[in-house]
Amino acid sequence: MIASLYDPAKYDGTNASLTSAISPDGSPEIGVKYRIPPRCGVAIKLQAGQQLQIENTHGTQVCDFWAYLAADMGQFLSMSHCRTWLQSVFPKVGDRLVTNCRQPVLEIINDTSPGVHDTVMSCCDLTRYQLLGCTEYHDNCTDNLRMALSAIGLEAPHVPDPFNLWMNIPISPDGQTSFEATVSSQGDVFGFRVLEDLIAVMSACPQDKNPINGADAKPSELHFIIKA
Amino acid sequence: MIASLYDPAKYDGTNASLTSAISPDGSPEIGVKYRIPPRCGVAIKLQAGQQLQIENTHGTQVCDFWAYLAADMGQFLSMSHCRTWLQSVFPKVGDRLVTNCRQPVLEIINDTSPGVHDTVMSCCDLTRYQLLGCTEYHDNCTDNLRMALSAIGLEAPHVPDPFNLWMNIPISPDGQTSFEATVSSQGDVFGFRVLEDLIAVMSACPQDKNPINGADAKPSELHFIIKA
Repeated sequence: MIASLYDPAKYDGTNASLTSAISPDGSPEIGVKYRIPPRCGVAIKLQAGQQLQIENTHGTQVCDFWAYLAADMGQFLSMSHCRTWLQSVFPKVGDRLVTNCRQPVLEIINDTSPGVHDTVMSCCDLTRYQLLGCTEYHDNCTDNLRMALSAIGLEAPHVPDPFNLWMNIPISPDGQTSFEATVSSQGDVFGFRVLEDLIAVMSACPQDKNPINGADAKPSELHFIIKA
Repeated sequence: MIASLYDPAKYDGTNASLTSAISPDGSPEIGVKYRIPPRCGVAIKLQAGQQLQIENTHGTQVCDFWAYLAADMGQFLSMSHCRTWLQSVFPKVGDRLVTNCRQPVLEIINDTSPGVHDTVMSCCDLTRYQLLGCTEYHDNCTDNLRMALSAIGLEAPHVPDPFNLWMNIPISPDGQTSFEATVSSQGDVFGFRVLEDLIAVMSACPQDKNPINGADAKPSELHFIIKA
């Protein structure tokens, strides 16, 4: 039995993502270093030609990343289409990332970390934490995406699979996966060149039930800067 | 520049999928063996408790598979949520497959093949074939999904990533993937137990530009049967 129709934009609870927008419509000031609070998400407007540089401030934090075309949010960065395009599950510097319509929208231009990022896992949501034993609301990347968009006056038409920056999910030859601590370092920076006008969302993943945000499972902040 | 808004239900061309429905609303007769024509898709209604048995008639054919909740097509079988749920990229007998809301909807109950199936690749679409050099319409699994649903009076609200039965996509330790010939045999059968009322779609993948449908790259037919 289905209690109600699924609404991709409806968040299951709230946190500071609702009040963490960098401006009313998500437009950034060039060269300003912005903060993503721990366990929260931030949505921004990016213009073709700009760079987005994301900083793993403390070195152990995963950033769930999404992007939608500004002109049509039904077109979005798609991990499965990236994997087909790149013939790899691990994007790296020089790779172009594509939408569900196979349009290149972002190019990876720098990565000071060892390059361990994830494209195969879904973003965490309230149900994921309930399955992990939580009995009360738990911050989650899916709600952070929804709230971050809401905070700049937009709605998520779909929850795409995220590009999980710095997330360490080894895949063994038999296909088994595991959730391991990041292998990045304090101040590591990951950079995109923006190829199309986009709405991008970053969530400082609030996962504290496994070691993906460091062996001590303490979610922390991230920073980012947009360059012309 | 975006020429037009993306409509997930709009097909880019047509083939016999539009006239291959097994009944006006996709309801099957129990115990009847149905055929999926080469390069085409078929949509069916499944009820909780039934079994769906899919036959790789000639042994070399990939079947792209999707499922939506009959009560809410916004909820669908999601490969990324399956991978997180199963902690594996290769589902196997005994595994339950889940939706984008992490609800189990199908259980894999039998598989006579060596168990090589794919969850990481997007379904082929017209753009994929254009990128592979095609200058005219090429049958594709995305359009087959759209047309198969249209043939039973439904519209695709979203094109989910497919469960690619018998598709052989090895993943090397560095994340590189390749498109290899199936390792299945003539008459191999893959079976699901249905856990929720579903709309399921199967496409006999028309890929003839790489060896995934056999070394001779000749797409062929599939068959299926529903058991009570």
